[in-house]
Amino acid sequence: MTGETNRRWLLANRPAGEPSENDFELVEAPVPEPGAGEFVIRALYLSLDPYMRGRMRDVKSYAPPAALGEVMVGGVAGQVVASKNADFSEGDIVQGNFGWQEYAVSDGAGIQRIDSSLAPISTALGILGMPGMTAYFGLLEVGQPVAGETVLVSAASGAVGGVVGQIAKIKGCRAVGIAGGAEKCAYITDVLGFDAAVDYKAALDDLHAALKEACPDGIDVYFDNVGGATLDTVLSLINLHARIAICGMISEYNLTAPEMAARPTRALLVNRARMQGLLVHDWADRRAEGVAQMAAWIDEGKLLYKEDVVEGIENMPGAFLRLLRGENFGKQLVKAGDPD
Amino acid sequence: MTGETNRRWLLANRPAGEPSENDFELVEAPVPEPGAGEFVIRALYLSLDPYMRGRMRDVKSYAPPAALGEVMVGGVAGQVVASKNADFSEGDIVQGNFGWQEYAVSDGAGIQRIDSSLAPISTALGILGMPGMTAYFGLLEVGQPVAGETVLVSAASGAVGGVVGQIAKIKGCRAVGIAGGAEKCAYITDVLGFDAAVDYKAALDDLHAALKEACPDGIDVYFDNVGGATLDTVLSLINLHARIAICGMISEYNLTAPEMAARPTRALLVNRARMQGLLVHDWADRRAEGVAQMAAWIDEGKLLYKEDVVEGIENMPGAFLRLLRGENFGKQLVKAGDPD
Repeated sequence: MTGETNRRWLLANRPAGEPSENDFELVEAPVPEPGAGEFVIRALYLSLDPYMRGRMRDVKSYAPPAALGEVMVGGVAGQVVASKNADFSEGDIVQGNFGWQEYAVSDGAGIQRIDSSLAPISTALGILGMPGMTAYFGLLEVGQPVAGETVLVSAASGAVGGVVGQIAKIKGCRAVGIAGGAEKCAYITDVLGFDAAVDYKAALDDLHAALKEACPDGIDVYFDNVGGATLDTVLSLINLHARIAICGMISEYNLTAPEMAARPTRALLVNRARMQGLLVHDWADRRAEGVAQMAAWIDEGKLLYKEDVVEGIENMPGAFLRLLRGENFGKQLVKAGDPD
Repeated sequence: MTGETNRRWLLANRPAGEPSENDFELVEAPVPEPGAGEFVIRALYLSLDPYMRGRMRDVKSYAPPAALGEVMVGGVAGQVVASKNADFSEGDIVQGNFGWQEYAVSDGAGIQRIDSSLAPISTALGILGMPGMTAYFGLLEVGQPVAGETVLVSAASGAVGGVVGQIAKIKGCRAVGIAGGAEKCAYITDVLGFDAAVDYKAALDDLHAALKEACPDGIDVYFDNVGGATLDTVLSLINLHARIAICGMISEYNLTAPEMAARPTRALLVNRARMQGLLVHDWADRRAEGVAQMAAWIDEGKLLYKEDVVEGIENMPGAFLRLLRGENFGKQLVKAGDPD
């Protein structure tokens, strides 16, 4: 074990606007012992994801908010270090919503095993986990791309966006990504194989023109991770029967009041287009299919991924704030330790 | 024939904001003669529909705008009065986009026959025509109502809305309508059989509370004909996996600049809901199926309709302005004459 105490990050405040490290409090507690039917895991990798900003709010969403004074919520890949549960043995590698802490107790509900002989453990939180499955089911089921169409994705170098563009290519589409900065744009075209990239930081003055140049045949599918004015601009470039998959809106997460914009309904009506919100949990019963297909594409070299790993659970809040500012490059993880 | 001249309404101006009668000009022309392969119809009923406001604008939409100085566009049911076309004979009753005029020439392209032995001629412009098919295909294909769900429709006493609610009832749903004034609300509940009505004029101060009371189990399908703040309010009451069919936005048609509102994307994401624009022409190849089913429901007494008939083509602009103000009650028609 890494220490005699369990370091835990609690949600200390519900921030208005941009969160700060002061909104989280690091506390130490004894390493828990498993009760009857329970087991204890030690965290190996902790996931950081944009949706966590939503959990810091006390409003209705698809999941209850994180509670003030309690461990901040989040997905973790860990190793069982003690068990009184017949289904989980010491040494097993598992993932679950264990939260921002080094050790957690579980009765096994909602826990998934990780076969670390198939792929690195960390991929269970990324390309073969929630972000990867979000891209897979979200693009295929909501976006419904057809070969020859143009698929645009925002936050295109991120854990979800990078996968969306690569699956679009596998399906024979033109893949275009929106990302921030020359390095990320070069990565999605030169490494991931996107057909074009739009640097939203460079195109701030005329995103419309930049998108139009990158999507000369218009936009058939928009997989949206950022919301905001980017979405408004995309709506002016969609094609007949376009599909807009609403996966996230990271540009709006720190707003203290809703941003006002022209309604999208005229663009949807004129183009008989569809805009649909998605959440990966709705395809939970098809997870095995998604993991198998994605793992096969990885094996075939058709699907690449990138991880941005910060060392040390003490750095969780800082890494989370970087993610919200778009300063991460690839799936954001915090490494807490190695398996025994 | 009704006269020696052809009275025609031209689009004289493109209004900013609310149109006035001065935006149309009545001119007289000779009754046309058919050329080779052509025929001439005399108008019996002229349709007035909210979409016509959009055609008065010079902007991209799903159809080209009406041209300044040309006959205003619109659907007409008429009788063939002269023919040099082998497929159409004198006396035939037909419908087509003949525009706001008493006589029109056609080569038969896009013209549909009306079997006046099956239903009154006027229904070809209403319940068995464009508005009725919009309700039928829009609700069933985009709204996808399931028995037991709550279906809400705006402009519920109108040519489309009244049909949407009745089909929702046929499909086993709770049907709730939004309409303006006590008379229209009583009509949709007492005559058409809606489960509840919300008078948006009476509920102006708190539409949210009125909708919540009328939809105690939330809203699964919203068939939207009005857009605007009503749509914004409905979005706060939708259920998981709700479907929002965007058919029209009559409350916004006279705006000179887009109205600003909070984006609907958060509500769509939290509820994994769908918002989709629709246009009846997309189901043109299934028109016969729709007409047959709707006619059967009318025969079985399951589907009622109401027409608001203004007499005389000279009253077209006034009747159109009434429609835009929501002062019509039922499908708005102008009667120009009787068949021979």
